[in-house]
Formats: sequence, C-alpha cells, structure tokens
Amino acid sequence: MSLPVDGMRRRQRIPEATIKRLPVYLRVLERLQEEEVAIISSAELARKSGITSEQIRKDLAYFGAFGTRGVGYGVASLARRLRSILGLDRPMGAVLVGAGHLGTALARYNRTRRQSVQVVAIFDQDPGKVGQVIEDLTVQPLEGLEETIAATGACLAILAVPGPAAQKVAQRLVQAGIEGILNFSPVQLKVPSGVQVQQIDLSLELESLAYYAGQGRHRVQEG
Amino acid sequence: MSLPVDGMRRRQRIPEATIKRLPVYLRVLERLQEEEVAIISSAELARKSGITSEQIRKDLAYFGAFGTRGVGYGVASLARRLRSILGLDRPMGAVLVGAGHLGTALARYNRTRRQSVQVVAIFDQDPGKVGQVIEDLTVQPLEGLEETIAATGACLAILAVPGPAAQKVAQRLVQAGIEGILNFSPVQLKVPSGVQVQQIDLSLELESLAYYAGQGRHRVQEG
Repeated sequence: MSLPVDGMRRRQRIPEATIKRLPVYLRVLERLQEEEVAIISSAELARKSGITSEQIRKDLAYFGAFGTRGVGYGVASLARRLRSILGLDRPMGAVLVGAGHLGTALARYNRTRRQSVQVVAIFDQDPGKVGQVIEDLTVQPLEGLEETIAATGACLAILAVPGPAAQKVAQRLVQAGIEGILNFSPVQLKVPSGVQVQQIDLSLELESLAYYAGQGRHRVQEG
Repeated sequence: MSLPVDGMRRRQRIPEATIKRLPVYLRVLERLQEEEVAIISSAELARKSGITSEQIRKDLAYFGAFGTRGVGYGVASLARRLRSILGLDRPMGAVLVGAGHLGTALARYNRTRRQSVQVVAIFDQDPGKVGQVIEDLTVQPLEGLEETIAATGACLAILAVPGPAAQKVAQRLVQAGIEGILNFSPVQLKVPSGVQVQQIDLSLELESLAYYAGQGRHRVQEG
C-alpha cells in the first residue's frame, strides 16, 4: 500500500522466472546459515543452486547491488534481503481448498516442515471429508472460507479441487482477499489482473517432458 | 537416434519455456477438434491459451511456418504437428515411484483421463503399499523397477518419494533408460546432461507466489 505507483510498475516488470529463482537462492543460503557459513563465492552459489552465476547476477541486479567482486555474497545479509523481497520476513498464511489425496499430501508436506508460507486452514465441500484431521488441522466446510480468510489474514491459497469446481472457488478466494493462487486444478482460472496464479498441471508437465524423451539424446550421449 | 547431430543441437537451443507452452496450445487445439472447429484465428488462439499471439508466433517459428496471415491456423494440422514435435504421436509410458498420498493422487489423475503420457506402472519400497491397487494398477516392489521399464518401454518417470530416497531412485531410473523425470521430491537431482528433470517443489512455488501477495497491488487496483 505504501509503494509508490512507479515502484509497483518496476516490480511488475521483473520476469516471473526471476521471481521463481529467488526462493531457490534463499534455500541454498538458509542451508549455509545452518552450517554457519558466512560468505559464499558466486561460483559456489551457482553450483549449489544449479543456476549459472551470470543468471544469479542478472536476477539479483533487479533488486540492487549484492556481493563483493572477488569475495562473494554475505550469506546472512543476502538471505535477509531475499526474504524481505519475497515478503517472507513475516509469516504468511495460505488456505488449502480440496482435501483429497493431493490436498492431503500438500498439507502434510507443508505442516511437517518449517516453511515460510504455512497452510493455516483446510477446506472441502464433501461432508465426508469435513472433520478429518490432517496433521494438526481439521478440514472445514467450504461455507466458512471467507470468514477464516479474514480471521487468519491468509493472502495465498492452494487450489486442489476437481476441475469443474475450480473457477467458482477461485472467485470466492479472490473476493475474500486472496492475492496469489497455486492452482493444481486442470483449469485455466480467470482472475482479476492483480491476482497471481501459478498453475501446476501434471499432464502439461508430462507432455512437455515427452519432448525431451524418446529422441535418443541420452542414448547417443552414452553410446 | 536418426537425428543428425546438428538437428539435435538445434533442438536443444529451443527455450524450455517454449517447450512448456506447446502442450498448452495443443490442449486448446484438441478441445477445438472435439468441437469440430477447423480454423482458429491467431487472436482467438491467444485468448483461449492465455498467451499473447506474438509469443505464439515466436514459439511456433522454432519449428517452421504455421498458419496463414489473415486467416489463422488449421486446427487439425497444427495439433498434428505439435503432437509430432512433442513426440506424442505414439503412446508414451511413464513409471511412477512413490505411492503415498501424492503418488496416489498423481496416478488417479493420470489413469482416469485419456492422456498422451500414461502411467504404466507404480512402485513403492514400503511393503505395506506393495499390492495396493490404484485405479487399475497394482503397486509393485522397487526391486522390479529396471525390469518393468525395459518391458514397458517407458521413457519418463514421476518421482514422488521422500527427499532422502530421491537421488538413489533417480540414478536407477536413468540407468534403466529413463530420459525425463518429473520430480516432486524436494531435492535437486543430479542426472547426466542428456536427461531432463522438471522439478515441482511446493514450498518454492509458495515462496515465489508470496512475492506477489501482501503488496497491496490487488487492493490498490480495486480501491
């Protein structure tokens, strides 16, 4: 809210691919912090993150100057800056809609790890699922969605409902103030332009992966 | 195998982002085929796929000339070409390793839909899961992995095992001839350069999504 309009525009021009790599850097840095490493060279950060040092420099340059030439990056300070850029310097809550196998797996994965973004509530429209406990959360009926979002201050949502239900739930999420949706439903959601949707579609992933397979590249390299 | 070396090089230069969009176009075209639509304008394909027509032109230009200016794309012929480019013009099999909640959700999702890439076998190292039936497939012990890959000709794998087990399983998959891995384990896999890995990491996705939330962009737009 306090960002000036051109600050917002500048943010919006940063490529999505860059934003998606920031948590990868952050994860490497957090692991280094646990190992009490103070400085990491640009080459080492590249090796550990699997991203070239040119790309790392380019990504970080969007947010100012980082690192010292010939020395490297200060682990703690770069981690702190990345957390701040991503908005992870304060806890962020996400609601999960859909408590089928996928939703259950996602909730378990999230709740059993110390994560910056925490699932704070789980919803399902199936009365047979309501009341089930997944880790430490009880599945709630979909009726309470808006109230819980308001009460918890959650601004993200994970959508793991069947395709036909997805758009309707997404509309409710957006109206309740959700600003980012991780969509596992095989449906292209229509949302206002200020809301970010990241879609994970198993069949699209497999189909693009198919391009790389069966072309004999691997066998040629080994033979 | 029959591709000339420079043909392979040319393929490798095509951006991953382009390859990931081809199945999105294909899905739109297949839906149009079901509706017996013969021609689609560039603008309409853009609208339906959620990708700009400039980007579509750029993506398709990697693979030759498509469409007729002022008319559009032939739905059937473009779909056929995309299937051929992606290697989806013949059935492609994938093995799934890990039959927990996530693996079960992925297998169900895949097996209950007509998909170009089909899960053909499911494995788990937990004796308690072996023998369970997910849709029409019986979970097999991990020992039979190599034999089943050889017998089915599967060239893709979906990895949904806990982090610590992932690298070891990936090595076995690669040695058994798998050329593409869809990795749901929160581990950066080390594989030979000819093998393509696509990683889906829930916490990284949520953390990058956090960037877009809580910045008041949405509220500003609505207020």
